[in-house]
Formats: sequence, structure tokens, C-alpha cells
Amino acid sequence: MCGIVGYIGSKKAIPVLINGLSKLEYRGYDSAGISVNENGALRVIKCKGRLSCLEDLLETEKLEGSMGIGHTRWATHGEPNDVNSHPHISQSGEIAVVHNGIIENYMQLKEFLIGQGYTFQSETDTEVIAHLVEYYYEGSLVDAVMKVIDEIEGSYALGVLCRDEQDMFVCARKDSPLIVGLGEGENFIASDIPAILEYTRDIYILEDKEVAILKRDSVQVFNSLGSPVNKEVFKVDWNVEAAEKGGYEHFMMKEMYEEPKVIRDTMNPRIKNGELVLDSINITREDIERLEKIYIVACGTAYHAGVVGKYIIEKLCRIPVEVDVASEFRYRDPLISDRNLTIIISQSGETLDTLFALREARKGGSRILSIVNVVGSSIARDSDDVLYTWAGPEIAVASTKAYNTQLTALYLVALDLGLKKGTITREQANTILEEMKKIPGGIEDILKDKDDIQKFAHAHFNSKSIFFIGRSLDYALSMEGSLKLKEISYIHSEAYAGGELKHGTIALIEKGTLVVCPMTQDSLFEKMVSNIREVKARGAVVLAITQERHREELEKTADMVLTIPDVDSLVAPISAVTPLQLFAYYMAIERGCDVDKPRNLAKSVTVE
Amino acid sequence: MCGIVGYIGSKKAIPVLINGLSKLEYRGYDSAGISVNENGALRVIKCKGRLSCLEDLLETEKLEGSMGIGHTRWATHGEPNDVNSHPHISQSGEIAVVHNGIIENYMQLKEFLIGQGYTFQSETDTEVIAHLVEYYYEGSLVDAVMKVIDEIEGSYALGVLCRDEQDMFVCARKDSPLIVGLGEGENFIASDIPAILEYTRDIYILEDKEVAILKRDSVQVFNSLGSPVNKEVFKVDWNVEAAEKGGYEHFMMKEMYEEPKVIRDTMNPRIKNGELVLDSINITREDIERLEKIYIVACGTAYHAGVVGKYIIEKLCRIPVEVDVASEFRYRDPLISDRNLTIIISQSGETLDTLFALREARKGGSRILSIVNVVGSSIARDSDDVLYTWAGPEIAVASTKAYNTQLTALYLVALDLGLKKGTITREQANTILEEMKKIPGGIEDILKDKDDIQKFAHAHFNSKSIFFIGRSLDYALSMEGSLKLKEISYIHSEAYAGGELKHGTIALIEKGTLVVCPMTQDSLFEKMVSNIREVKARGAVVLAITQERHREELEKTADMVLTIPDVDSLVAPISAVTPLQLFAYYMAIERGCDVDKPRNLAKSVTVE
Repeated sequence: MCGIVGYIGSKKAIPVLINGLSKLEYRGYDSAGISVNENGALRVIKCKGRLSCLEDLLETEKLEGSMGIGHTRWATHGEPNDVNSHPHISQSGEIAVVHNGIIENYMQLKEFLIGQGYTFQSETDTEVIAHLVEYYYEGSLVDAVMKVIDEIEGSYALGVLCRDEQDMFVCARKDSPLIVGLGEGENFIASDIPAILEYTRDIYILEDKEVAILKRDSVQVFNSLGSPVNKEVFKVDWNVEAAEKGGYEHFMMKEMYEEPKVIRDTMNPRIKNGELVLDSINITREDIERLEKIYIVACGTAYHAGVVGKYIIEKLCRIPVEVDVASEFRYRDPLISDRNLTIIISQSGETLDTLFALREARKGGSRILSIVNVVGSSIARDSDDVLYTWAGPEIAVASTKAYNTQLTALYLVALDLGLKKGTITREQANTILEEMKKIPGGIEDILKDKDDIQKFAHAHFNSKSIFFIGRSLDYALSMEGSLKLKEISYIHSEAYAGGELKHGTIALIEKGTLVVCPMTQDSLFEKMVSNIREVKARGAVVLAITQERHREELEKTADMVLTIPDVDSLVAPISAVTPLQLFAYYMAIERGCDVDKPRNLAKSVTVE
Repeated sequence: MCGIVGYIGSKKAIPVLINGLSKLEYRGYDSAGISVNENGALRVIKCKGRLSCLEDLLETEKLEGSMGIGHTRWATHGEPNDVNSHPHISQSGEIAVVHNGIIENYMQLKEFLIGQGYTFQSETDTEVIAHLVEYYYEGSLVDAVMKVIDEIEGSYALGVLCRDEQDMFVCARKDSPLIVGLGEGENFIASDIPAILEYTRDIYILEDKEVAILKRDSVQVFNSLGSPVNKEVFKVDWNVEAAEKGGYEHFMMKEMYEEPKVIRDTMNPRIKNGELVLDSINITREDIERLEKIYIVACGTAYHAGVVGKYIIEKLCRIPVEVDVASEFRYRDPLISDRNLTIIISQSGETLDTLFALREARKGGSRILSIVNVVGSSIARDSDDVLYTWAGPEIAVASTKAYNTQLTALYLVALDLGLKKGTITREQANTILEEMKKIPGGIEDILKDKDDIQKFAHAHFNSKSIFFIGRSLDYALSMEGSLKLKEISYIHSEAYAGGELKHGTIALIEKGTLVVCPMTQDSLFEKMVSNIREVKARGAVVLAITQERHREELEKTADMVLTIPDVDSLVAPISAVTPLQLFAYYMAIERGCDVDKPRNLAKSVTVE
């Protein structure tokens, strides 16, 4: 997830671009860059670091020109450094590109281009696009871009400058957001509305595979067949603050709405021709056969992802897995050898407890596989293998979309290890992948039904204590659902294994106590129905979350049933967490809490 | 823990004995029996089952005689059956004995007696006493008993009848309770006051190693040297209900006061000449070397004992241990083979979830070692090795003394496995045993200071939410402390690893929130001080529990410091749980809760 801005008009481009990028810095801030067409020459200034570093450079390097593109980066392919920063320039300097998204087939394209004599400067997937546009460029930038988007797979929002086209530039998008801002004698592109709100409130929202030509006085939009599209002008009536949140009241809600996209981003590039290919994990069959045990170590929400990971890896790979909170793992003198693999999970890649746990595991000789969201972060750098979650920057302190992508990544790891070890067949893996592909659409449906959750929250926000109970994978979900609720609503809630509550804690259930029951595991459904009866016998009010196929039956027992679209029990946690996140969100809203910035908490915990 | 009653007077003995035993049935109820001297013949009626079974037998078998002894049994050595029931009769029928306690050197004595031509009917340790008294009997029962108590090691309360002494019987005690009731023309013995409260309120409380001769009109008490002792008459002013609780307001408090004794009972018989001897565990060095992993499976409080067990076994034996709640273990298709050992922990030995988990483990080929409190219970019967906790019957639903003995047993197992595997030396084991021996005395001191805890509870009983935080073994303690509080006070409390709270749940800490911090682990002391500062910075009130040696330092940071007598960090949990139990108790009292019978809970959970 990166931020893109583009400008063509009569002003100097640089101040407009920098101003726009400053509004998009929430989308990424590990490097920044701009390119301007200065009298038929493409000049590029870019550097690692926050936008202020770029501004410092621009103090001395004065760039003229009133057409340009800018970028603020959230690293995906290639760690954050000057060379990997955008814009990227094609071999002969003809083309400059800024890109947000992931090009899934960039390795094949790169090989093709190398065969054509192109040399690559960066480790990015984006550089492929610059060279490829140049390769196809025969006097019409838009034609070249059209050809390129026929060839690239994955997600993208693109801004493309051409040295020889001084009165226009081109943009395009698929699965990554891009809007066109319509000014008077000037036009804009941007990843997000806040970047241009100061200049115009009239925008086009580009659809997937649409391409636009921006000139000073006109914007033409084409569909993927090259036919002109009549776009409707969208009048923005949001204020700046609302615009930063994409029109949502809070970043947390915005980020929940991003879940379908970021799950696809995390999953799709790793599926090639319907089959799993985890390029970044270099663990061989021989390595796996030596493995005696896998540790999963993390904190908070990432730890709860790890609890799911334990179930999935043990099931698919038949390797014992121990999951532990990092602050405990580090100090308990764990039994570690080179026959262990340690999976480290962290959104920021900077969580201090987790980083120290990683070092403890490495000291014992364990191989380290990390699942992190920030490229080049400390944990990523210290790992043998890294599987990035492509969740993009998460602003809300309470993690939502990062968790869904951590789960997605753990399933991919489990499938990869299982395939290599031979405990699952390629066919079984593909069946699971097919189920996983249903998840993003499923979450879209869940989000559509969010009003039901809000209504339920409205009736129960005064709860003093709430319990979450679930069995197996639903226990892991319960932990995360409970944490989310605590973090933002400050209601004391607690997760219990469905069968364990009666061994003491059921004493706290009294008339009206709310008990939340994720029930996505078909084989344990009846056991959970019994557990629901136990708490209902003590007066509890039960909110159950299950697949649509169980709704009717469950409505006989539970007071309120939320459903997720039908999906196999094994992969259900990835979408079933979303209703729990929404529940926490609306409970916090009803209680008047500051959802995005809960008291006492920090986004990335870099203290012990 | 069994119940003993004895009578001599002018009434028929049987109704008095049965009435007395009925008041002691809480001390054991797996079998019962009586013996009466009927005109110079010792008649015995005994059977497996509750006291009512004995009463049924007595309907048909009429026994006359106005001197007799009775017993209600809580099995220790030998499972509950007719033969193992008390009283036990000596070879020639000369002597009848009822016994409460454990004779630690009974194997040696048994061998000696077999060498002398005695044959044994039962599997009990008690039968040794009957034969030995006969062996020494030369016309004076009291002399014979004196000789016997010089030879036996362990704990005992004894009632001894002799065929040839029709106007007197003898009793004695060490470490097991026994009182003498003083009537008019009749006298009594009993394990506990309620048994005789209907007949007299004047009693002697026998001290360790005292022996008494009871006749109709007199009671003479001697010390271990045979010198007469002038006993003070204790006037009982309790009502019957209070008497059943040993004068305590609740069984829970009574059972906490029993902790020193039951820890000694669990530990001492397994230490011979200062060295650990776990006769009942037949796991060999070769068995251990084959072990890849140990599972510990339990529910509720026993599960929390298991969490301590994991730390201890991994530390002392360097074998990976996974601890799991039974209801989850059973259904998650755990990876089990004959290279696993599964340790099952259950007070009652009948916990259904745990029993099913045991069967799941066995199905996978695992060896089963159980730690249970009830001899002959389902779990004990289904196990390969059983290490009994000698906690005696626990009446209060919230487990206290059983937990301390479960910990004690787990330490003994860890030492045994570590010694056999060679990961600890005999010297190291003995050092740890020396530390463990300090625990019972330590708990006696803790109980003396209980008023401090009551005062603190009085000031904080209105808390809505309480958090327990600790690291490593203190995290395990936190779990148990939190559960205890929840069970009986219905305050929502929750345990967190000291380093994990900040990853979300710290949002719930506000001004006045009570945070309880067990801090018995020296190496993590400073880390916990930091965690205390984190919560205090958000307004928390902190109650810390630590060794006496840290009091002064900790008083600078915590609001209230409770101490346990100095003991090594490794074994500290066994005594450090007691202040947490007391805290839960007083919080519940202050809130007016029914401490012994908390709502919604059952003592032994035999449903899923």
C-alpha cells in the first residue's frame, strides 16, 4: 500500500505533489519520490525515509515543470532504500512510473525484458512496468500502457510519465485505488481523496482496468478494450478528516473494509496457475523432515493468529507446534535446537518482545520464518525466511486487517510445509486454496450486514463482563474477539475454551451476561450447542457466529445469530473474525470510546 | 484422610459408633467398618461403600458389646474394597486396629513380619500395625502400642482393641488428628469433634506421639517416653455445623489450614533417608530416553497445576512438555505416539473431560501417569502409573489444598524423571527437596498473617475487574489466583503474562483498578517491577506477593506487599498460592458470597 499523486496544470508541480503526498503519508512512509517532466527531460528525486527527507533534498535540487508524479512508499518487493523508491525510470529514461500494488507475474516479465536487453536497477516489481511501457512505446503513451496492463497480473494503481509527451500523462488501476481530480486548467490523480481535496472536490473514481489520459484541460477515460467511458463526476462533500478515512468514521472501519483486498493481495500473488508457490520460503523437503517441532511466537493479536496457526500446521503437516507469547518464551529457557523452526508473527516487525524472542530462538539454533507486514523491519531483517502480509499500513491501534492477512499467511505456510512434507496432496492443497478464495467475497457480504451487529451492540453496550467461548479454531477466534473488545470498548471480556468454562469461571454467568460463541467448526457444533445450553441455563444471553448453513438450527438455541457465508470449517477463522471485529467496533462506538486511539495503547509496542 | 471413632461405656457400642461415623463421613466414604469386643471376642463388620452399606449389614449381623472402634475410609494404600477396609485384625485375632494416616516404612515392617510368619490379607499399610501390636503384645496393650509407635514412621491416628482386654482400649496419634471425649461413665475417641458432640463437650486434644488408655471411668494419657501427661480439658462451645468445619467458618478455610499437613503427607512418604523414592512410578531410564514429549492434560485448577508442571519438568528434565485443557486436547487430534507420556491431573479422578482426554492419549499409544486424590477412581484405574496426592477429601467446591498437593506431586515427578534421565544429580534433587521441606512451615506462617489479607480485601472488595500478572511460574500462579477469585467472589478477574498485558489488555487499567502480582521468581523480579510501573502509571493499585527477602525493595513500588517465608524461586509456587487463596476467600467473604458452595459450580465435573 503506497500513496500516489499526479499533477498537470499551470502551477509548478512540485509543491502540489509534496502537499498531496503529505496527506497520503499514512499509506506508507518508508521512502518517497517525485518525477517531473522538465522541458522534455524526466527528472527524478527520491530517497529512503519519510517525506521530510525528500523535502530536504528538494531544497537544494530545484525542479521546474508543471507536470509530475509523486509516491510515498510502503515497501513490498525490495526493502526500503533509495534505489527501490519510486518513481522508477525505464532503461533509456523515456518512462517514469509510480505504482501501488503488487505485480504477481513480474518475475516472468523481468526475464523476458532481460532477454530483450533491459537491465534492472532495483528489486521492485514496479521497475518491470517502466521498462515494459518503454518496450511498447511507439509514440502513444496510452497505447503502450494499454498493452502493458494486458500483460501484467496482480494489483496496481499506476501513474506514468513519458519524456516525449509534455502535455499529458496516463494513469490506470486494478484492485488498488486511484481517483482523478478535475480542476480548472489543471487535473490530478491520487490514491485517495485527501491528497487533492485542497484543489478540487470533483472527482472520477476509476474502475478496475480503466485507463485515463490527463491533460491540462481534459481527462479522457477508457475501458480495457480501449473504448471511451463516460464517467460520472463524484462531488466530495467530506471534510479533510473524513476524507483521510476514506469517508469512514474511523480508520478501524476503513481498515475492516480493506480486508477483502488485503487478503487477496496476500494470497493471490502466491497462487500461480491455481497452485501455491511460496517463493520467499526456502525451506526444503529435507529441512522439514529434520524438524522436530515448530514454535510460533508473537504478542497480542499476532499471538492469536499463532494459535490458529498451531491448529492448522499440526493438522496439515503433522509437526508438533507450540505457540507462546513472546515475553514468556524469551525467559523460560525454551528447549531449542537446529531441529526447530520458529515462526515469528508481527505486524510492525518491530515488536520488541517478539524481536528478543526471535533472537533467543536463533541463539538456540532454530531457523526463523517471520510473517510481518513491514518490509525491511527489524524482524524481517533478522529472519531466514519472510512471508510478508500485504495488509498495508494499519492506522487504527486495534489491529483488524493485519490479523486476517496473518491468518492467510499462516494457512499458506501450513500448505507449503504440508506439500513439501507430503502430508497433504497437491489436490488437497488446491481444494483448501479454493475455499480460501471464497473468503474475500465472504467478508464483503459480512460487511454489508453490519447493521445487524450495530443493532445488537446498541442493546448490549452496557455489559460489564462478556465471555467468549469456542472450541478448537473457534477458541483461537474467541481470544481475538475478546481482545478486540477489550482494547477499544474497555469492557472486561475473556475467552474460554468451550469445555473449560464450567471448571470454575461459569460462576460469573448470571442473568443477562453476554456470551459470544464463534461456532464455525462443524465437527464441534453439537458440543458447543451443549455449552450454550449450560450458560443459558444460568441466564446468559448468547450471540453466536456461524456459517449460513447453520443459521436455522442455531436460532433455536442462541439469542442472536450472525452468519458468515458458507465456507469450509478449516479456513473459516479468516472471515469469521470480521463479525467479531465489527462487534467490538460497535460496542466501543455505543460507549463513546475513541475507537482508533484507545487509552494506554500504542500501535507498535517497542518496549518490554 | 479417614474418620475414626471409638467408644467404651455402658451403652451398646454400635449405635454410638455409627452415629459418630455418620458425622465423619466427609472425611472419607469409600468403605466403613467397626469392631466390637463381644465377651472376649473381636468381631469385625466392614464393607466397601458408604456408611449406609455397613448399616445394612448390621441390620442382620447383630453385635453386642459396649466397647468398639469404627472407621470410615478415604483410600490411600490399596483400593477401596471389603478386604482393605478397616478395622484390620491381627493374625491370631488378638488385635483390631483402625488407622488414619500413612505408614511410610510399612514395606520394611511387612517384610519383617512376613519373616516372622505373618501373612497379610490386605494391601493396606494399616494391617502392619495390627500384626505388629500382636507381635509385641505380652499382656499389656499400652506397652505393645508404645513399642509399635517407636517403630512406625509416618502419620497416624490409631484406635486399638485387644481381645483379652475387655475393659479398656488404646489410642495414639502423630500428625493425624485425634481427640478424646470425656463422658460420664463413658469415654470416646474421634478424628474430629462432631463425632462425639452429641455425647460430650469436654475433650482432650492429643498431641503428637501421645498415647491414651480409655476405660469407662478414666482416661490416662502418656507421652512418648511413657510418662503420664496432665491434659487440660478443652470445652467445646461450637455448634455442630461449626464443629464439622473444625471451628472454621468455612470448609475452604479449614482446608487451607490443612495445607501444611497434606503437603507433608504427599511429600514425606516419598522421601526415604533424605532421598526421593517414587515407588508407584515404574518409568525406567530407558522409557524416559525414548520420550519425545510429555503432555499434561487437566481442567480448571488442576490445569493450572499443570502449567507449573510444564515449567518444572522442562527445566529439570529437558523434555518438551505441552499442557492443555482436557476439553480441547480431546478434540484437536493431538499428535500422540508411544514416545509420549501423558500426565493426567484430577482431584476427584472422575472429571469427565479429563477421563476422555486420558482415553484419547491412550488410543494414540501414550503411557499414562495420573496425579489424583481419590484412590481407585476412574482415572487412577485407567492409568499406567499413579501418584496419589494425599490431600484427603476436599469439601469446598473451590479447590485449595488439592492444588498445593498437585504441585507437590508434580515436583516429585519432575525430580524423579530428571534423576532417571540424568539431567539433574542426586545432590541437586536433594537440595530441591530440602527447599520443598520448608514449604509446610512456610504456609503455617502465611496463615498466621492472614489478617493483613483480610484488611486489604476489606478495602478492595468492591472492585469490578481485577488483573493478575506474573511471569513464568508466577504466570501459572496468576492463573490459579484469578480462577479462585472468580469462582467464589464472582469478580471478573483475568491472568496475564506480565509482558503481555501491554499488547492490548492494558486498555482496561484505569484509576483504582486492582492488579495482583505474584513475584516469586528472582530472575524476573526487575522485569516485573517494570510491569508494575506500567500499570501504576495508568492508575492501578498493586498487590504484590513475594518472598520476605524482597519486601523492603518492593514496598517502594507496590501499594501492598504480602510475603511468603524465604524459599527458592523454583519451589515457591507451592506456598505462594496460599496468599492468593486467602485473598480470594476474604474478597468473597466481604462480598457476602457462599464461599463453600459458589453458584453454578459442582465439586467434581462429570459432564462434558
